[in-house]
Amino acid sequence: MTTANDRRAASVNAPVRNSAKALRHAMSGLSGPEAMGWTGTVRPAGTPGDGQEVLILGAGVAGLTAAYELSMLGYRCTVLEAQNRVGGRNRTARNGDELYELDDSGAVTHTHTCAFDDDMYLNLGPGRIPYHHRRVLKYCRDFGVELEPYIMETTANRVRPPGAEVTWPNRRVANDTRGYIAAKLAETLVELDTFTGEMRHLLRVFGALDENGKYRGTTRSGYLAPPDIEAWPTPAPPLSFEDLVNSGFWKARFYQPVDYLWQATMFQPVGGMDHIVKALAREAKRAGATLVLGAEVLDIEIGEGGQGVHVRYRKGDDEFDADARYCVSNIPIPVLRDIHLTNFSDPFEQAINTINFEQTCKVGWQANRRFWEGDLGSWDDTEGIYGGISWTSHNITQLWYPSNDYFSDKGTLTGAYNFQEEAHTLGNLPPEERLELARKGAIELHPEFADESLVPNDKGVSIAWHKVPYQLGGWAAWKPHKENHKQAYKQLLQPEGIDAFFVTGDQISPLPGWQEGAMMSAHYVCQQILGIMPLTAPDEVAVPDSVALTQGLF
Amino acid sequence: MTTANDRRAASVNAPVRNSAKALRHAMSGLSGPEAMGWTGTVRPAGTPGDGQEVLILGAGVAGLTAAYELSMLGYRCTVLEAQNRVGGRNRTARNGDELYELDDSGAVTHTHTCAFDDDMYLNLGPGRIPYHHRRVLKYCRDFGVELEPYIMETTANRVRPPGAEVTWPNRRVANDTRGYIAAKLAETLVELDTFTGEMRHLLRVFGALDENGKYRGTTRSGYLAPPDIEAWPTPAPPLSFEDLVNSGFWKARFYQPVDYLWQATMFQPVGGMDHIVKALAREAKRAGATLVLGAEVLDIEIGEGGQGVHVRYRKGDDEFDADARYCVSNIPIPVLRDIHLTNFSDPFEQAINTINFEQTCKVGWQANRRFWEGDLGSWDDTEGIYGGISWTSHNITQLWYPSNDYFSDKGTLTGAYNFQEEAHTLGNLPPEERLELARKGAIELHPEFADESLVPNDKGVSIAWHKVPYQLGGWAAWKPHKENHKQAYKQLLQPEGIDAFFVTGDQISPLPGWQEGAMMSAHYVCQQILGIMPLTAPDEVAVPDSVALTQGLF
Repeated sequence: MTTANDRRAASVNAPVRNSAKALRHAMSGLSGPEAMGWTGTVRPAGTPGDGQEVLILGAGVAGLTAAYELSMLGYRCTVLEAQNRVGGRNRTARNGDELYELDDSGAVTHTHTCAFDDDMYLNLGPGRIPYHHRRVLKYCRDFGVELEPYIMETTANRVRPPGAEVTWPNRRVANDTRGYIAAKLAETLVELDTFTGEMRHLLRVFGALDENGKYRGTTRSGYLAPPDIEAWPTPAPPLSFEDLVNSGFWKARFYQPVDYLWQATMFQPVGGMDHIVKALAREAKRAGATLVLGAEVLDIEIGEGGQGVHVRYRKGDDEFDADARYCVSNIPIPVLRDIHLTNFSDPFEQAINTINFEQTCKVGWQANRRFWEGDLGSWDDTEGIYGGISWTSHNITQLWYPSNDYFSDKGTLTGAYNFQEEAHTLGNLPPEERLELARKGAIELHPEFADESLVPNDKGVSIAWHKVPYQLGGWAAWKPHKENHKQAYKQLLQPEGIDAFFVTGDQISPLPGWQEGAMMSAHYVCQQILGIMPLTAPDEVAVPDSVALTQGLF
Repeated sequence: MTTANDRRAASVNAPVRNSAKALRHAMSGLSGPEAMGWTGTVRPAGTPGDGQEVLILGAGVAGLTAAYELSMLGYRCTVLEAQNRVGGRNRTARNGDELYELDDSGAVTHTHTCAFDDDMYLNLGPGRIPYHHRRVLKYCRDFGVELEPYIMETTANRVRPPGAEVTWPNRRVANDTRGYIAAKLAETLVELDTFTGEMRHLLRVFGALDENGKYRGTTRSGYLAPPDIEAWPTPAPPLSFEDLVNSGFWKARFYQPVDYLWQATMFQPVGGMDHIVKALAREAKRAGATLVLGAEVLDIEIGEGGQGVHVRYRKGDDEFDADARYCVSNIPIPVLRDIHLTNFSDPFEQAINTINFEQTCKVGWQANRRFWEGDLGSWDDTEGIYGGISWTSHNITQLWYPSNDYFSDKGTLTGAYNFQEEAHTLGNLPPEERLELARKGAIELHPEFADESLVPNDKGVSIAWHKVPYQLGGWAAWKPHKENHKQAYKQLLQPEGIDAFFVTGDQISPLPGWQEGAMMSAHYVCQQILGIMPLTAPDEVAVPDSVALTQGLF
């Protein structure tokens, strides 16, 4: 275990000013710099792990992070991963990749093989990194994972609202709405004779209002026609406020980019998100961890008197046993639920039966020409879309354009990323029918999708995460106001046995569905094992709102 | 000249649906496809130029574009450029670059030498390309100029408003203002009992309002403290609406990124904006154009009966004469004004005496650590700034962060980009005092600027474009409502003599200060020379609003 000196050394380098943590450390009887502990980014001096065995179940982002950090701290880590690749939901589809899902009977079925061209890829799981997700960014920097901007929104993106059979450009919807809202307010100020001074000036600039506070359109919404050497272009005529309001465009998640998690500047690894888990796995091994792929956990037993953990797993046709002082489980809760557990507490079993994982699907297309970037050979076409997302009330929910290799020939698009009922519907279709449905949604945004030689079916991919073996969903569907969710969240923060078995992953973090949450949870568990963080959770925990955190406010 | 067949061939490839142009073609007696003409991006078949001589004065963006296009059309082009480099205001500062300005007596003076490290650069002129500037994008793609996203705005950027000695993050100012404006409107709707239905839902999502239509803060404005595994973070407490309104933050051009010209996704050439003019020069030469550097034009004389042009220029200690059928002048109007002109019309002389160029300065810094990107080693620091602009009411007006080489060690920043009076003040200082003033403005945004070992003075650069020889300003300061500006704009669209002398550049385009305007103007002049576009301007021309087009609405 760490010594006070170790902890002091770490805390001097990187003090943590986090009120919840400070409180918890005070509760734990520590105070002053010693209470600050390890930050997960500056390691305590030495190797407090002292060769103690840790079994890590699952080589997802949290499992790999824990394997790396604990190995660096002197623990002997073995990672058991059921699949033949690392990363879990961090998965990038490339040519030749095989996709499997569970069929109705629960049997693992090969659905299709990714047939992208050799230089193409698409992130099937996480696809972007917020600028404030410092853990992910730091591992990328430290491990040489090159990042490039992920463009969340361009004003050339489109929206197809639920209440209208139209497709509008982002810039018109955003700026006309903004203008009308400002003008509505100006109207009441005019009546009160208070449309004056700084407030008048602010509203005019905010909404692009005329001198009288009316909104009559603005070039913020784009031009009616391309600029001309002889005439300054007129603004695109404003959409009517009535049409905007009746369309319900915001329900198509139009304002998601305004939320903190999707604000600029976001990043993506050059060449695919899986470079992150490949780097984590490489560095964990370099630090001494052992990775066992294709190792499916069958039984987990907490030892006599709560001491240590015994795990039985299958690899190929054989079964193996493993024992360890600590066990860190990165297994998704719905998967853990189906594993035979022995000597676990009732509240723990209750907790893992409480929380479900969200249904979510993605579809990927390869287009043989980047038609959405427009035809640079024509003056007419001012509609180049470079990255960002178009939103639609169609089942596909959203269409992502590539934030890489602009102006090149080919490109891949995320042709659907949906949730809950929409994902249920899409996921229940066989792969070829998923593509058919996704193509219909895409055609409503871009008629070019009707051309199957441009966007070929045989290069389409799809994934229903809730049907993927060893995953069974996108993320924990936490609901903050449910009493049993509070109980479950608190329970899963605490180890089983005598600090023997720990749950980790974005599933037990304030950022469900985000790699930062997975890393944060891994660091938390490392701190518990180090003895820096208490093993009992505080009475009051805040349960994350998984819908808001994965889809914004709408 | 072009034949009807040539024009038809071009028009079939790329029809132009531009109402002003269609009208003008109809006026010119052409109709149908023939009226559509050359688009500047698909060339007529053959070489209608037939070896006729064209003298192009100035190797700025428009001059180089005209040289390339006319050479490809079979004209024999010679470009006379006064400076020893191409590009004009398209200039990228690198190690060893010498900067010159005119002193009070009008003498050319060496101000300083750029001392950036070898791998560093900064764009002193144009620094970004809107996604709808299709000409610039097309030349970049065709000529292999690699582009990367230019980030105009991140919500981590800062604003220091005129009415408050504070520095706020963009996300708080943007989202709190948005919330309060929506809430103000909701308040009046509540009073009218109409805060219901779709309108209520829209306002709640637009402004992040509570059930009653109140704005109480939102995580859109960021977190009060970094997220914690045990507690969902509380939103940053909202700024007060009163403070926001009184601060006048929007006067610091905070909403410039909302305007069409600065909307995402913008681009910049990898490695410096001057890659564009280097590529244009290379391709113009490849197409047969001759470039003469260091050739200062002294006299321009239109020939007998308006036929042809005679130019006298100095190169080194010698003077030379050149004659041509056509002359295309990319010389900035304030510079042209000082050249001896013979046989030009009175309205032309009046026009070039009417329009002035804007004063504008830039300052560039090299920082030896990218402190604005934050310290990834600490959980505390969620404030990484990756690209974008911080706005301030200080003389420097704005601070640009690099949109390239994120997460690397060093970086260059645009430490001032100002206009009019502010540029006058800054430009009147000697270079070392400009840096001193710019540093003060930067410290108000980032205290780290006080550390001269981090941001060394001897690696600072500055430029006052209005004092740069052969430039004398940033762009034509057109004012749309001035009658004499309308006269001048119209006059400068028309050639002098018998289609002998043409003015080109962003200075006579709807996009002053933008490279797209320069290219648009070059294409226009090419069309006039080709006989596709009439030589007389329409009675009514729209004069661009240079302030709005370079600085947005504020």
